[in-house]
Amino acid sequence: MRPEQEKEYHHALKAALESGYNILQAGGSSLDAVVAAVESLEDCPLFNAGRGAVFTNEGKHELDAAVMLGNSRAAGAVASVSGVRNPVRLARAVMEHSEHVLLAGAGAEQFAKSRAIAFEPEDYFFTRQRYDQWQEAMREGVVQLDHRDDKKFGTVGAVALDNAGNVAAATSTGGMTNKRFGRIGDSPLIGAGTWADNTTCAVSCTGHGEYFIRAVAAYDVACLMEYKGKSLRQACEEVVMRKLKPAGGEGGLIALDRTGVPVLIFNSEGMYRGWQTMPGAPNTAIYGD
Amino acid sequence: MRPEQEKEYHHALKAALESGYNILQAGGSSLDAVVAAVESLEDCPLFNAGRGAVFTNEGKHELDAAVMLGNSRAAGAVASVSGVRNPVRLARAVMEHSEHVLLAGAGAEQFAKSRAIAFEPEDYFFTRQRYDQWQEAMREGVVQLDHRDDKKFGTVGAVALDNAGNVAAATSTGGMTNKRFGRIGDSPLIGAGTWADNTTCAVSCTGHGEYFIRAVAAYDVACLMEYKGKSLRQACEEVVMRKLKPAGGEGGLIALDRTGVPVLIFNSEGMYRGWQTMPGAPNTAIYGD
Repeated sequence: MRPEQEKEYHHALKAALESGYNILQAGGSSLDAVVAAVESLEDCPLFNAGRGAVFTNEGKHELDAAVMLGNSRAAGAVASVSGVRNPVRLARAVMEHSEHVLLAGAGAEQFAKSRAIAFEPEDYFFTRQRYDQWQEAMREGVVQLDHRDDKKFGTVGAVALDNAGNVAAATSTGGMTNKRFGRIGDSPLIGAGTWADNTTCAVSCTGHGEYFIRAVAAYDVACLMEYKGKSLRQACEEVVMRKLKPAGGEGGLIALDRTGVPVLIFNSEGMYRGWQTMPGAPNTAIYGD
Repeated sequence: MRPEQEKEYHHALKAALESGYNILQAGGSSLDAVVAAVESLEDCPLFNAGRGAVFTNEGKHELDAAVMLGNSRAAGAVASVSGVRNPVRLARAVMEHSEHVLLAGAGAEQFAKSRAIAFEPEDYFFTRQRYDQWQEAMREGVVQLDHRDDKKFGTVGAVALDNAGNVAAATSTGGMTNKRFGRIGDSPLIGAGTWADNTTCAVSCTGHGEYFIRAVAAYDVACLMEYKGKSLRQACEEVVMRKLKPAGGEGGLIALDRTGVPVLIFNSEGMYRGWQTMPGAPNTAIYGD
């Protein structure tokens, strides 16, 4: 990656951190913070979520997102929605204004309209980089993650701890380039790609979704803490390095418990990431440390 | 429920047991057994799966199913598919013939056609009882489980252990009567409504899906066994009676580990269920024992 590209990613990650951290600093909730951070990343064309989502086999964008609250285990998620500017906002609306957890496809879009969630025309979601990736995937007849060349994952997510001691998690993604057949990955599945419970932790995952689903990766971190007494770091290492990696499950996750010390871990070459635990001191990184 | 109705349920449960148990007796796999048992229940108009599925708000049938194998943790699932005669067969095809775990909606139906999975016209799925339930739910403006009057659950599932020592689980459902917005419940979500791993157990759930999703109910049973050393029965009681019940999560599950002693547990008034551990001795029940 060219240095100026790297700069753009660091800049976008800092902007997302800022939008979330400002809310926490002002005494806002972890839910508001994770949604604001993820919206910031959805609006940025660099990441595989919202505006910068990858193309499906049919040349469309099918977006997945989830949000979960640590104090009540309330959760909301959407899968395979098209045209929704901020899928994470729709996931929040499912949590707050429906009796359901997971809505999909045209039905979820109909719900979005009933809640006055913003839509965008198809060309809003067009980015040259994703289009070229799709064309290449079409030529080669493959379905692929969005990290082919540099092994960094484009699904976006956020975890936060607020002054009230509540954790929250949110995840948003366009899934896999050239995906077919209404494929749904781990991001919108509570326990697989997204989890939050004050008694353990908040988790948001990125990577090869099928492996994360079959590992119930996010909830497994919580179970290793609650049932086996592991620390957040130990539990994350167990899942990402000793379970997912040997199975071929490339990816990583971000996690936070009520101590407020974040864990950002991946078994791939890199993972775009950022964290902030003090005012005015955002940290961002791409490759291994 | 009238005695002759009860008789019909016992008869249908015995037929499903027989179709699965015959396969195991002949040395077949637990996967073949659970799929055969669930197909038998899908073909029976009495249960809320396949033929007897409930009506959605739009007067359609949107079917969910999943299957998982204990020796490899391979899994396949479909959500919101219409017209597929045996959704569990499609879930198996996703596991065996796609690189994905979860396919949904029109895309999943397209995949079904590519695998020559059988479809049925809309009237195949018409049953007077479900139609009347839907009309009543429409009049009252509610979304409801299919057990309103008698608190028994109509989602179908099966777990099995074969001679090779492999467990498997399968689940199939029409979801909630009068459901809208592409709602997906726990049945097709690996870890929530369906789970199988030889090191712990195979689980299939039925009940109020949203609670089972937020509890990651099926995988929680496995985690309590693996990380906390609980027996299958203890783990199932913990999840169904001490976690789901106080939270309002009405329902139950069937589970099996490699000892071959099944657990069938529910926190509701009843659960249509059956089990067989010896040739010629099928057991069926509806209410609490």
